[in-house]
Amino acid sequence: MASSVTPTPLLKDELDIVIPTIRNLDFLEMWRPFFQPYHLIIVQDGDPSKVIKVPEGFDYELYNRNDINRILGPKSSCISFKDSACRCFGYMVSKKKYIFTIDDDCFVAKDPSGNDINALEQHIKNLLSPSTPFFFNTLYDPYREGADFVRGYPFSLREGVPTAVSHGLWLNIPDYDAPTQLVKPRERNTRFVDAVLTIPKGTLFPMCGMNLAFDRELIGPAMYFGLMGDGQPIGRYDDMWAGWCIKVICDHLGLGVKTGLPYIWHSKASNPFVNLKKEYKGIYWQEELIPFFQAATLPKECTTVQSCYKELSKQVKAKLGKIDDYFNKLADAMLTWIEAWDELNPSTQLANGK
Amino acid sequence: MASSVTPTPLLKDELDIVIPTIRNLDFLEMWRPFFQPYHLIIVQDGDPSKVIKVPEGFDYELYNRNDINRILGPKSSCISFKDSACRCFGYMVSKKKYIFTIDDDCFVAKDPSGNDINALEQHIKNLLSPSTPFFFNTLYDPYREGADFVRGYPFSLREGVPTAVSHGLWLNIPDYDAPTQLVKPRERNTRFVDAVLTIPKGTLFPMCGMNLAFDRELIGPAMYFGLMGDGQPIGRYDDMWAGWCIKVICDHLGLGVKTGLPYIWHSKASNPFVNLKKEYKGIYWQEELIPFFQAATLPKECTTVQSCYKELSKQVKAKLGKIDDYFNKLADAMLTWIEAWDELNPSTQLANGK
Repeated sequence: MASSVTPTPLLKDELDIVIPTIRNLDFLEMWRPFFQPYHLIIVQDGDPSKVIKVPEGFDYELYNRNDINRILGPKSSCISFKDSACRCFGYMVSKKKYIFTIDDDCFVAKDPSGNDINALEQHIKNLLSPSTPFFFNTLYDPYREGADFVRGYPFSLREGVPTAVSHGLWLNIPDYDAPTQLVKPRERNTRFVDAVLTIPKGTLFPMCGMNLAFDRELIGPAMYFGLMGDGQPIGRYDDMWAGWCIKVICDHLGLGVKTGLPYIWHSKASNPFVNLKKEYKGIYWQEELIPFFQAATLPKECTTVQSCYKELSKQVKAKLGKIDDYFNKLADAMLTWIEAWDELNPSTQLANGK
Repeated sequence: MASSVTPTPLLKDELDIVIPTIRNLDFLEMWRPFFQPYHLIIVQDGDPSKVIKVPEGFDYELYNRNDINRILGPKSSCISFKDSACRCFGYMVSKKKYIFTIDDDCFVAKDPSGNDINALEQHIKNLLSPSTPFFFNTLYDPYREGADFVRGYPFSLREGVPTAVSHGLWLNIPDYDAPTQLVKPRERNTRFVDAVLTIPKGTLFPMCGMNLAFDRELIGPAMYFGLMGDGQPIGRYDDMWAGWCIKVICDHLGLGVKTGLPYIWHSKASNPFVNLKKEYKGIYWQEELIPFFQAATLPKECTTVQSCYKELSKQVKAKLGKIDDYFNKLADAMLTWIEAWDELNPSTQLANGK
């Protein structure tokens, strides 16, 4: 397990790396110097009889659909099939405080000096330093070396709040929707923006699940990636759905969400025609979903992530059910998810109160 | 007027550069390739008998305190003396659509490739492209070359809204308050963050007047830098005050505020002991001012900047007057400012309705 790059890996025993996949995990070779010290949770999507090869030397557990069905029983209905949304099963079975999740078409990016970026290390830095959701700091993350709060930043807000989520970005293939992919097939993201910033309270953002870390204890039960893929009318909205839900709940509970660094190298654009089929209802529905989440408020009595999430599920049913029956199913699945989470994580149910 | 750097200067006849100063404007030599095509409005602070030298070849008008008193008569009381807040007189006498204001200790910065940054050109780009205050785009300004809206960004919001303000940043000496200057006397900002972003609706920020551009027609009457300096209990809160006011009004009117690029090179830290004396009441007061501005709402009937600003002045008097009598004076000065603005800009009064 000797690694020349990370002599003392941060949070080695407190973080799991969750990877949803349908193929052999050769991409891990490039991540070996950074990931090898950590435990991996691999969620195998699709045909459970297929054997997924994991490069030697990695410490991992792997779950396929049969495992999910066995562990959750009838509650497994809340875990998507044939969609990377299935990754959230890994969040649920983890016993660690922190999760980093990454797609298997994401590779190590280089910073402008040509050095390999240790994405995981940056996520950990983001999660371990506070967030500043109540007032914008124009020099970005005030806790980074060489930065601070600027003139005019209220002193009472300089302690910040705990960071629940760290959202990383992508060089090369940007995370575009199908219409944008179709219109700009050759666009590549080459701009390295050397910033981490807190997404202000009250502001929603499009959370991408490709390169994402979070504090399970603070926000885990809300990191549900919804019903997507097989048997469902949409796909590619799993991470978006989770992003809207976690942001509303983080805002309510006074937790922070950061975006920016680290970058990964996203190697392959998915097929825009296939994506369009998966997305088109989402593209239409999101015009109503976003105003819903923008207006959503949670009662004071909701002081745990679980209680917030259950309340949100109630509001989804009451206000979005009329758009399509899918949202009634989704609201039910949100409750099933929480039940399954609490079953597998009996201690966090109480510990999570704040 | 030949310039090798800006062969076709943008908005040459639609933008004034406003510079508050107490000294000879030698700093303009470095800016010559970028500023020479534009008209300058120099607001001379302090002793009006002092002669300010302006390098040859610049097209400028200069106002000293005697000019301000002569032009505004009794209304000149709203223009600060012995404080760079006096710069807002320049905004008022300009006849152009756009303003760029810069301090005379700010020089041309270099980008990471070592090229001189044309700050004005970047501000113009920021102002001429829309803002996106209603939803956060994780790849920052979606209108920049090589960027776009990411997956999950509602299509109905992709037209954006008009940009009213472009807030630029500073390399070298960061814009810190006196306590931070005292604690970190050697801190220099060396991080070039290659981003422009919209400050989301509902979020306040510390607006610095050192490197700032705005659309006079959209927001000019709210760009009042308050009562600072000579005879006033505080200083160094002129731009902050303006920033809180313009943000509340931009949010109400559906206008955008951008921050990030361009950088200028801020050469000299001001004296932290002097700053502490100017700031200490502001540091204390801002703890109440910011909640006030965060909670401020304007009635639907306020559809012009002027009417918004008058309403804000009323709220300042009603809610902040009890903190210190200074805020009653400031509220009155806000009204005097609007009267003076409308007197000097009779046409914008109506044109500004939206």
